[in-house]
Parts: sequence; C-alpha cells; structure tokens
Amino acid sequence: MAESRDAVKIGLLGCGTIGSGVFHLVRKNAAGLTEAARRPVEVSGILVKAIDEARPFEVDTSIMTTEASSLLDDPGIDVFIEVMGGTEPARSYALEVLGKGRHLVTANKELIARHGRELMEAAVRTDAQVMFEAAVGGGIPIVRPMELSLGGDVVNKILGIVNGTTNYILTRMSAEGSTYAEALAEAQQLGYAEADPSADVEGGDAASKLAILSSIAFKAGITSDQVYREGISRVRPEDLDNAAELGYAVKLLAIAERAEAGVSARVHPTMLPRSHPLASISGNFNAVFVIGESVGDLMFYGQGAGSLPTATAILGDVVNVVRTMGSPPASRRSYWSRPGEVLPMEEVVSRFYMVLNVVDRPGVLAKIAGVFGDNNVSLESVVQKGIGDGAQIVLITHGVAERSFRAATEGLEKLDVVLEIPSVIRVES
Amino acid sequence: MAESRDAVKIGLLGCGTIGSGVFHLVRKNAAGLTEAARRPVEVSGILVKAIDEARPFEVDTSIMTTEASSLLDDPGIDVFIEVMGGTEPARSYALEVLGKGRHLVTANKELIARHGRELMEAAVRTDAQVMFEAAVGGGIPIVRPMELSLGGDVVNKILGIVNGTTNYILTRMSAEGSTYAEALAEAQQLGYAEADPSADVEGGDAASKLAILSSIAFKAGITSDQVYREGISRVRPEDLDNAAELGYAVKLLAIAERAEAGVSARVHPTMLPRSHPLASISGNFNAVFVIGESVGDLMFYGQGAGSLPTATAILGDVVNVVRTMGSPPASRRSYWSRPGEVLPMEEVVSRFYMVLNVVDRPGVLAKIAGVFGDNNVSLESVVQKGIGDGAQIVLITHGVAERSFRAATEGLEKLDVVLEIPSVIRVES
Repeated sequence: MAESRDAVKIGLLGCGTIGSGVFHLVRKNAAGLTEAARRPVEVSGILVKAIDEARPFEVDTSIMTTEASSLLDDPGIDVFIEVMGGTEPARSYALEVLGKGRHLVTANKELIARHGRELMEAAVRTDAQVMFEAAVGGGIPIVRPMELSLGGDVVNKILGIVNGTTNYILTRMSAEGSTYAEALAEAQQLGYAEADPSADVEGGDAASKLAILSSIAFKAGITSDQVYREGISRVRPEDLDNAAELGYAVKLLAIAERAEAGVSARVHPTMLPRSHPLASISGNFNAVFVIGESVGDLMFYGQGAGSLPTATAILGDVVNVVRTMGSPPASRRSYWSRPGEVLPMEEVVSRFYMVLNVVDRPGVLAKIAGVFGDNNVSLESVVQKGIGDGAQIVLITHGVAERSFRAATEGLEKLDVVLEIPSVIRVES
Repeated sequence: MAESRDAVKIGLLGCGTIGSGVFHLVRKNAAGLTEAARRPVEVSGILVKAIDEARPFEVDTSIMTTEASSLLDDPGIDVFIEVMGGTEPARSYALEVLGKGRHLVTANKELIARHGRELMEAAVRTDAQVMFEAAVGGGIPIVRPMELSLGGDVVNKILGIVNGTTNYILTRMSAEGSTYAEALAEAQQLGYAEADPSADVEGGDAASKLAILSSIAFKAGITSDQVYREGISRVRPEDLDNAAELGYAVKLLAIAERAEAGVSARVHPTMLPRSHPLASISGNFNAVFVIGESVGDLMFYGQGAGSLPTATAILGDVVNVVRTMGSPPASRRSYWSRPGEVLPMEEVVSRFYMVLNVVDRPGVLAKIAGVFGDNNVSLESVVQKGIGDGAQIVLITHGVAERSFRAATEGLEKLDVVLEIPSVIRVES
C-alpha cells in the first residue's frame, strides 16, 4: 500500500507521440504507479511547441506552456521527462535540469549517444539521476538489467535488433520476395518508416542505441560517431534466398564485442544462423542478445517503439527515480567520463558472404581462390550457381580482418573473369 | 570509479553449486563489482554443512563455519546470501537476518513461494531488503524488470518456460521422436535431471516460480499451493507429431493470467503455435513471456539454472542492495500481505487438444460431437486418423471452462465407440 506522502511533480518536456502516452498512462495507472513508486506522481507542467497540436492521447492543455523557463525554473518540479527528441534544445534543457539537481528521465537516444558524458558528469556533480531506459529498445527493459542485474558479470558481446523499421523491411523482403524499395514503400504506408527513412535504413538510429548499450557494457563513454554503420538498402531479395538456402537469416544487427584486440561497435546487415534466437525476431519487434562471461546468453525481446511501450519504459524510470529520491543516486555513471576506445573497422574480424557475377569459363574458381589465398582469406564454402550470362559464385569466408577482406575484394575487382560483386554481407555464427 | 569506502561484508549461507559460484565471482569480478556497487564487496563468512565437501569452484575454507550462530550473530555482516535451498532452516535463518534489519539475497524459490508473505512483512518492519532475482529463471533478469520497469504498467499475462529439465526433455522428444522415459534417462545422464526428477517433471519447481512471478505481477501474495500443476510424464511422442502437423510445439508452460473472472495460475503441458517466440526456446534454456497492457509483448530469455548464471543474478541483487543501503529500502513489498485470490482450475478457460481411440464405424464422429455439444463445448478442428484398430480422432476445442470440458470428457468415456482417451493437452494461441 502506498504511503501517504506529497505527490512527486513531473515536468514533461515535449508532448508528441510519446509524451502524450506518458500523460495518458500516469492518469490511467495512477494507483499502480503510486504503489510502485510509493508516492503519488503527477504531471504538473508540459512544455510544447504548440498547444493545439493533434496528439494520439488526450492531454490536459491547461498545464501546457510554450515557455521553457516556466517549467525549468519551477522549483516544485522534482523530475523532468524529456521526450522532445533531437539534440538541441534537449541538451541545453537537460543540462539545466541536472545543474539544478533535478532528475532527468529521457527517451532521447541521440542525446545520450552524443552527449552522454556531459550529462553524466553534470548529474554526478549535483547527485541528480539520469535515466534513459526508453532510449534503447522502446518498452524492453534493457538498460537497467545491463547496469544492475549484470553488475556482477562481464559483458563480452551484444547483438541487437534495435531498429524496428529495418527489421520490418527485411522480414517482408524475406517473406514476400519483395525488393528493398517495395518493402520500404509498404513500411512507409503503414507508418513504420518515415517519409525520409535514412536515419533508420542507413543504421544511424541503431548506431545511437548501440553507443548507449556498449557504454554501459564496457564501462566507458562510447559515442554514436564511433560506431561503424552500413544500412540495408543494398540487400537484394537474391541474398535473402541465398541466405535461406545456406541456413541463415539476414538482419540489421548492432554488434558490440570485447575481443582480444579491443572493443568493436558496428551496425550492418548480418547473416545469422536460423537457429539463433535473434533469427526469428520478425516484423517491427526488437531484441537484444547479450553474452555475459558468467551468465551466458540472455535475450530481451519486445516492442522497440510506439507511444505506450515507450511511455511504459519512461514510467519504469520514474518509479526508479522516485523510489530512491533523497538517497545517494542509484544511477551515478562516472565511467562515462572514460573515453571508450573502439577498434577501427579495418581491424574487426568477421566472416563474409560474397556474391560474384563471373564469366562462365573453366579456371574462374581457381583465379578467385588465388586472390583470396594471396590475401590470407580462407574460404568456408564456395558454390557455383547459374550458367552462361548468369554464372555466379556464392561464397562464405572464415573469420578474417576487414582490412584483408577489402584487399582481397580489390584484387577480385581487377580480375577479368569477375564482372561484378553485387553483394557482400557479414556473417555471425 | 569506485568510491573508497569500507567493504560491504557478505555472509554466505550455504556453499554448494551456487554458493561456490558466488564466492568465485566475487573474487574474480572484484573490480567490476566494486564499480557497480560503488563499494567493495567481500565474503566474510560461509555457513556449510561440512567444510571438506567437493565444490565446483575453489572456496576459501578458512572463513567457513558449521555453526549458524557465528554468522547470524556477527554484527559486521551487512548482507546475507541464502543458497541452502529447501524451506528449513532457510526460513528460520532468513527471518532472523531480516529481524535484525540485515539484508537478504536468496536464490530459494520454495522459500519465497511458500513463505514470501512472512519474509516481506519481516523486512518491512525493519526496513531490510529481500532480493530474489535468482529464484526465478536463474541468470535471467526477470524479477527486477517486473517490479521496476513495469511499475507503470499493468501485467495481464505471464507465460513462462521456467524449468530447463522439462524443456530439455520435450525438446529431445520432439527432435528425436524419443519417448518421455528415454528423454528423461538422457537428461539424467547429462545432469539436467535429478535421480528423483519429480519436482521438475511434475511441475512443482515451475509452480514455485510462477507463484513468485504472479505475486509481483498481480500485487498480492500468491503461494505455490495455489498454482494448479500437471507434469509432462503423460506427453507421448505421437502428441508431439500431431502438434507439429497442426502447427504447434508442446512446452511445459507456467501461465498466470488476469481475466475478467479473476486470476489464474497454472503449470501444464501446452500446445503453442510454432510462430510464438516461446515455441523456439529449446534445450535447457528458460524464457518468460510477459504481456503488459501498455508495453505489449516482452520476452526474457537465458540460462535458467547453473552455478555461474545463478550466481550472476545473486550478485546483481547484491549490487542493488549495496547501492541503496542506508536509504529507504527499494524493495518494500507490502502488497505481499494481500492474499492473492486464484480461480479454481474448473473455472479457467482453455482450448484443448484431445486424442480419442475409437471404433472404426460410421456415426462415431456424430456421437462424439454430440457429447461435446451437450456440454457446450464447440470444436475448432476435428481430424479422423488411421483405420480399423488404429482409428483415432484428433480434435481441438474452442475456449471452454475446464469444468465443461471435464464433463464432456466424462460423457465421452461412457460412449461405447470411445475405446480410450490417451491424450489431452491445453492449447494457447
């Protein structure tokens, strides 16, 4: 049962899809929220760009303002929820909030992935808390489990499907045989992809999320700039067919790994064995697979976006903040000040799937194998497909440093028997 | 970076498979643990039955004792980790620890599932914390996410594969066509099943875990006695074949659901559509699928048992306790004092798969359908298989209260055309 104490006052910075969902849930689940947080929680002010915008959930316009200062300067507000998105003015507001020792809950992945260090340092100075469960994986609890539940373990690898748009597109391409362009158009019609889909399909969104997860996992500040990214626009239906024949599924994965040479962090289309738990994550769902040294394989699955799932994650953060208000902050992250070193992509070891359109002539395979051999790339499987004009070689390499693979690719492009290399996709096992 | 403060002293009650794993990890991950907990953590005393037992990890015997009082009465110990298992003396020790305001971390599912109310009340009285992440799903973070991350949502349903032994057996039966007895023997050889496997295969272990999860989800104390249970020993290879033909997998599921009539809590073999994320959880892995009103579908997957995965969960709890020591406890669970009401199984609505061995004669189907109709059970699909002595009817009902289904079953058993009903399995969609 809730203790009878004064309500915690929340300032909502932004009130679009997610913000209105937060307002809706705070009202609807008031009793449960009070019991979980052990104090009543109320939204006392909302900063908006325009009061009369259309919103997915009804919101009390009487507490709205278009003046940031009227919320930021209100000493009665204990916790700010930032759901504006983008880095400015979100960053300035966040720093102001934390500078005053008020707590911040944010769903803003760019903000944390780019300015995490600055925010964590500001929070440490004033003993304020910064929570951002909603910034990765929408409604999926992943940030807090990584920080707390795995606090006694060492995370060795993260493999995440953290972008629902691209997972939806790849799922459709795989199920329907449609092209990337067709599947993208369908995703746009359904509202799963934006009119300008580049942040999703080129991997930028996933890179921000991976920067956050890998900072927590490797206990150092890693920014989105440090994450190598490659989007899905060059994945062809034929590649999905080939992958299926070889026993793989193709997913856009965000991968961070602690290897002997160092830490890697990258987003790219990836062939995954069908038996891998991530291979069957379909549609716009997200899932994060974590390999801990002692805990072994873990996977967290759920809705990676959407108003209410994301609002749920935000309220989980609010519950956590309210429970520990007045105590030493539970979320102090001094480690974010240590700059995280990330291996240059050239040094990352992967297996590769490659398709070569070739001249149908005896000795072709020997020439191709020779180039790989010269570059110390060993081949796991080679299949010759089609004849005449459609002759192709489909191969998978063993693990090799990106640098060697690229050198081999350059060599292959110079061969007169190689007409084109239409596809290269990294392979995970 | 860790603050330099005195080490938190841990008393380890029990030092078998899990306890020695805890000791091992505390030593091995000392630096990371200190950073996560923000204080050094050390095991200062260990209660054992016999000092010279064989253990999977090396443990410092100089801090071992066989005298419970020498640990329980030591005022220098801040946190006790209980990994003895069973309800006594674990319960008495736990109550003593909490009575003195010391914190308790336990992996003991029976203890929480049977005596949760008493323990939570003792903890509330002294502002001590009780943590039990390791009691459900081994290394999988599920207790804390349910409590904190879903604090702003309403949990409507839990479907869990929470027993690795039975999941291993069913996976083998399904993959190899082996019988229950063969798969059990194999599991015993591999150490996945005990010599007396009854707690696992009859659903008792899963029932304890479900009692804990449903108490948290439905915010009331639900004990393992309140959970209906049915084991896997009657599942036949033929049922797995039939299930596969119909597009289903068979899993031992722990299911808790908030329905209009009330809350249900039950463990039984269940046919799940192949496309359900739980259907592909194979071998001795565990997974808990949670449906929240706002967050939608979530799934948590990982190693449900084993020394180090379980020890990782325990250390996650220790990190959490240490971070909030001296603050109002983050885990106060007054709601456990509200007795949870669970619907009698007769009132629970399920779909059912049923196999009837029948006399191969015209009109049989009409008689059977008549009995179902008389009991208001409607049929979703009926397939007649085999001829002559091997004639069978395989059917799936629509959703129906258990009481009506049982009445229909009694009616069917009285029909002269029905020779035997070798199998009944509930079906989830």
